[in-house]
Amino acid sequence: MAKLISGNDISKEVRDEIKAEIDKIRAKPEHADFTPGLAIIQVGDRSDSNVYIRNKLKKAEEVGIRAVHIKLPPSTTQDQLEAEIDRLNADDAIDGMIVQLPLETTSPIDSDSVIDRIDQRKDVDGLTRENAGRLARGELEGTIIPCTPRGCLYLVQKATGDENYVRGKKVVVIGRSKIVGSPAAALFMWHHATTTICHSRTANLKEECLQADVLVVAIGQALKVKGDWIKPGAVVIDCGINVLENEGANGKNKMVGDVDFESAKEVAGFITPVPGGVGPMTIAMLLKNTLDQARKRRLEASTGGRWSLR
Amino acid sequence: MAKLISGNDISKEVRDEIKAEIDKIRAKPEHADFTPGLAIIQVGDRSDSNVYIRNKLKKAEEVGIRAVHIKLPPSTTQDQLEAEIDRLNADDAIDGMIVQLPLETTSPIDSDSVIDRIDQRKDVDGLTRENAGRLARGELEGTIIPCTPRGCLYLVQKATGDENYVRGKKVVVIGRSKIVGSPAAALFMWHHATTTICHSRTANLKEECLQADVLVVAIGQALKVKGDWIKPGAVVIDCGINVLENEGANGKNKMVGDVDFESAKEVAGFITPVPGGVGPMTIAMLLKNTLDQARKRRLEASTGGRWSLR
Ligand SMILES: NC(=O)C1=CN([C@@H]2O[C@H](COP(=O)(O)OP(=O)(O)OC[C@H]3O[C@@H](n4cnc5c(N)ncnc54)[C@H](OP(=O)(O)O)[C@@H]3O)[C@@H](O)[C@H]2O)C=CC1
Ligand SMILES: NC(=O)C1=CN([C@@H]2O[C@H](COP(=O)(O)OP(=O)(O)OC[C@H]3O[C@@H](n4cnc5c(N)ncnc54)[C@H](OP(=O)(O)O)[C@@H]3O)[C@@H](O)[C@H]2O)C=CC1
Repeated sequence: MAKLISGNDISKEVRDEIKAEIDKIRAKPEHADFTPGLAIIQVGDRSDSNVYIRNKLKKAEEVGIRAVHIKLPPSTTQDQLEAEIDRLNADDAIDGMIVQLPLETTSPIDSDSVIDRIDQRKDVDGLTRENAGRLARGELEGTIIPCTPRGCLYLVQKATGDENYVRGKKVVVIGRSKIVGSPAAALFMWHHATTTICHSRTANLKEECLQADVLVVAIGQALKVKGDWIKPGAVVIDCGINVLENEGANGKNKMVGDVDFESAKEVAGFITPVPGGVGPMTIAMLLKNTLDQARKRRLEASTGGRWSLR
Repeated sequence: MAKLISGNDISKEVRDEIKAEIDKIRAKPEHADFTPGLAIIQVGDRSDSNVYIRNKLKKAEEVGIRAVHIKLPPSTTQDQLEAEIDRLNADDAIDGMIVQLPLETTSPIDSDSVIDRIDQRKDVDGLTRENAGRLARGELEGTIIPCTPRGCLYLVQKATGDENYVRGKKVVVIGRSKIVGSPAAALFMWHHATTTICHSRTANLKEECLQADVLVVAIGQALKVKGDWIKPGAVVIDCGINVLENEGANGKNKMVGDVDFESAKEVAGFITPVPGGVGPMTIAMLLKNTLDQARKRRLEASTGGRWSLR
């Protein structure tokens, strides 16, 4: 029977550590006003985005990060959005910014090139092409790691109590999106795992999974990965967020992961639940990225050489 | 007994096609003076670099690409080198440029940030971080693919006669350098292979290799991969270039790959020799990248939107 990896508990610890770290910096008289600043840019008024953003604002405030919500109308053009990003790039009070996706917009906007416009040092979602390139090449020092992959790795490290747990181990990542699967595969590989990346064209998904010492699933397919796909004792990290309509208690909706938790927990060594696994880690890592960048940009300004300033 | 994949023959075909393509473009009166331009920047006077560059200049000229060799003294500073790149970025006659590595220099130069300074559209080695990021995310249309990985994939496609050969197949890449292993793994994965990347920390290298339908080896370890590491019928692509001193005929040096060709050819379905396998493909793909970028920049100028111009 697997040990449960509580993303709720571990993310709480991370947020507590962030708060303590900020307090510690502020305790020095010369940094008494140290307040990391995070900007969340929203285009439109999607209700799911509103919920996510409200949660990010609340969690940021709790740890002592000043988060500002910049809500632009759906009529915003690409030029206007980029002008907003330029303004935030130039704003010394802002240490990180994210563009809440998907955009709700009436004009054609290329969100990838909008995101590429973010100053590399302020890209706390780690989603610019340059950050993706740095991560792909293993330049971990100079890279801002995307939040969900960073959360996945952290859960493995914390659950096993071994920072180097994945080194030399076999990691299988299912999914290759630019937000979760691809950066997760790169991150684990550069922590020296032998890494396989699977996707919708993979022929023998079950056989690939059975080899995994650590299995990271990010496909958005409810309950796809079964217990008999899992190597006994493996660490199973389930990123999936799927809603089964009317299948919860009293006919309510039920949230499930990409892994069939009930059968998987009988075989795995460690497993994340959904909800309460990877989900809460994503925000915690966003806050951690913001603090890290604030520290680098404000307190260690001399490391500028690692970054290509344009 | 494996079929031999002749990089000599296939690279010759590619170069002939490039020449024919350039001639065809020039046959149109409005493009009569179409001449792709390639700049090769060298710092210092390493004799191996001199040989490689001479070969590139010669092969470029043969196909109708105008290649210029810009040789800077070892005393060149990073600022001076970047100024040279800026000049070439602005030079409309130049469609592609490469920095010959390693630099031979007496001043501290960060070659990664020098390369990042190359206009993305002129980065025909595909070695900027932005191109690495595009490739990692599968934006194959907008990416310049690094030459050696592009050559590896092309050899598989040509040898098997199937452009989609790797789709759904298991590909194992050994090596994770930014020039060969990492981009090769990304390239094969985005051609829809299930891809495993191995490196010096991989625990069971032989077992990983035995699963490969296509095995790409880029480790720089003479004769490391043996016949009994190979799945019968697999396609084996050997990028290695290793010199065994005094082990050739008459005590001369002998060039060998990372694969033990003699035992591997008994098991593999297809195999590249060394020399005459991957090696000659690298230059052919450099010329192809140069032609592709010249065509995009000069003849299809309206596609500019795909590129983030800075
Ligand atoms: N916890 C959190 O904070 C976050 C959770 N998520 C959740 O993670 C999941 C994945 O998200 P995201 O990466 O953005 O999703 P995407 O839809 O962008 O990517 C899904 C990936 O899974 C692959 N895939 C889909 N179906 C299968 C299958 N049957 N077998 C194998 N591979 C398959 C796809 O392959 P192909 O490329 O071939 O199409 C694709 O690479 C979702 O449930 C999402 O809600 C996402 C972000 C944050
Ligand atoms: N044909 C051509 O045109 C070209 C050929 N080459 C040749 O390809 C080979 C590789 O080049 P390059 O990628 O630049 O080399 P690098 O030295 O940069 O990288 C070698 C990679 O192989 C891994 N590796 C080394 N030893 C082992 C081992 N025993 N088992 C498993 N993995 C190992 C290393 O792992 P780790 O990361 O853990 O250290 C590293 O990732 C060389 O022989 C080179 O000459 C290179 C470029 C072009």
